Amino acid sequence: MILPRLFLFISLFSLALSNEQSNSHILPRPLILETTHLRELDNEVKLQCTSWRFAVEANNLNPWKQIPLECAEYVEDYMLGRGYKLDLERVSNEAGVYAKSVELSGDGKDVWVFDVDETLLSHLPYYADHGYGLEIFDPVEFDKWVGKALAPPLEPSLKLYNEIMGMGFQVFLLTGRSEKQRNVTEENLINAGFQNWDKLILRGSEDHEKLATVYKSDKRDEMVKEGYKIIGNSGDQWSDLLGSSMSNRSFKLPNPMYFIP
Amino acid sequence: MILPRLFLFISLFSLALSNEQSNSHILPRPLILETTHLRELDNEVKLQCTSWRFAVEANNLNPWKQIPLECAEYVEDYMLGRGYKLDLERVSNEAGVYAKSVELSGDGKDVWVFDVDETLLSHLPYYADHGYGLEIFDPVEFDKWVGKALAPPLEPSLKLYNEIMGMGFQVFLLTGRSEKQRNVTEENLINAGFQNWDKLILRGSEDHEKLATVYKSDKRDEMVKEGYKIIGNSGDQWSDLLGSSMSNRSFKLPNPMYFIP
Repeated sequence: MILPRLFLFISLFSLALSNEQSNSHILPRPLILETTHLRELDNEVKLQCTSWRFAVEANNLNPWKQIPLECAEYVEDYMLGRGYKLDLERVSNEAGVYAKSVELSGDGKDVWVFDVDETLLSHLPYYADHGYGLEIFDPVEFDKWVGKALAPPLEPSLKLYNEIMGMGFQVFLLTGRSEKQRNVTEENLINAGFQNWDKLILRGSEDHEKLATVYKSDKRDEMVKEGYKIIGNSGDQWSDLLGSSMSNRSFKLPNPMYFIP
Repeated sequence: MILPRLFLFISLFSLALSNEQSNSHILPRPLILETTHLRELDNEVKLQCTSWRFAVEANNLNPWKQIPLECAEYVEDYMLGRGYKLDLERVSNEAGVYAKSVELSGDGKDVWVFDVDETLLSHLPYYADHGYGLEIFDPVEFDKWVGKALAPPLEPSLKLYNEIMGMGFQVFLLTGRSEKQRNVTEENLINAGFQNWDKLILRGSEDHEKLATVYKSDKRDEMVKEGYKIIGNSGDQWSDLLGSSMSNRSFKLPNPMYFIP
């Protein structure tokens, strides 16, 4: 993962050269790569990529297909380090506190909606082999991985899931996966420790052309028509959370690796 | 701003002492505060406070009245350093790109909504004197500051504002300020360089008991009833953006200093 840093160096190097020229120095000075320079460069990249990541999480970015090249190492560090873990724990804790504060009607109509991918199940093992979002998404390769049903649970989400279950919510899993993947999805969820959900909703043939926001809104509209109250909604994409029949409270799990409109 | 760090030190110091006891050392070892320790402590605080700030910006936190004590210095550094500036620039740039991509109907009904405080006008001079969100909000003190009409513009927002104007949007300013503050608000906006807005909507007497989310939703509902299409909405609080008659796209400006439900 040295490439992005190298790229930045080359850019800065060219900049240095052009400055030299404009200052009428004929011979470029020797470029000594000192630790201090490296550290400053690291700090600059961190600052820029943190700002980019905030824009992702606050839903400020226009649609994007790859993480910025210069943030490749930053995103890897975040995903593998404590940052991602801390963020997952915080969002699950806050959701749990909120869920406990709600007085349920007790009529079996209080719903918590969970997305599946990067919300209950982690595809970090797959993305580790595909540049953590630096490579353009390859649906064929990804479906092969999904077919293995080996995605591990996001532990803080599993904890929240069990708490929500215990409080008497109806738990609806609403995923962008296809109805054809129902068996493998159930198998993976159970392997990862998730049990006893009330509904698992996947894309039927009529949903395949829809944007995720539209498909998920349609499904939430149906829930509301059937008399359900959507009290909470957990998802790693804003397309899990925005649209019609929005939940009373939404919880955005971190995901700087990819964007689904 | 040494207090929070001191507080952490004392906590860690107590922890060290209790560990000493459990390890049956009778006499505490001398505690040498080395630079490396300070740096590790700084890194830990940075990690925790960055995670907290993400939760703020992604709207994951339950209602809060003060920033965490241990993040006081972190928030100050962010607000005064390049982080806040970069985030403001990014959100305005993304909003500008989106605005340009929209085909306007040209019937004078395409609206961009801007919040005012911490969206167009900056109260950083006030918050610098009040712990950057560490002190509980004091409405009397704050209204005195607002009465001076001295709040500077957020420069990236002013740039966006002028771009949006130039594209032919109707520009509606929707603020939680009271109707009684109309004159001083207009004065401050003009002093800060904002001109020619189409509507400035403030809280009337019937709105004062409403939560910001409800008040702003009601006002957007009215716009929609009058035939306006809300194409974009910029605000530093999620209560500027969520609720009914939501905009096609919302842009969340950074604000780790306070929360308005």
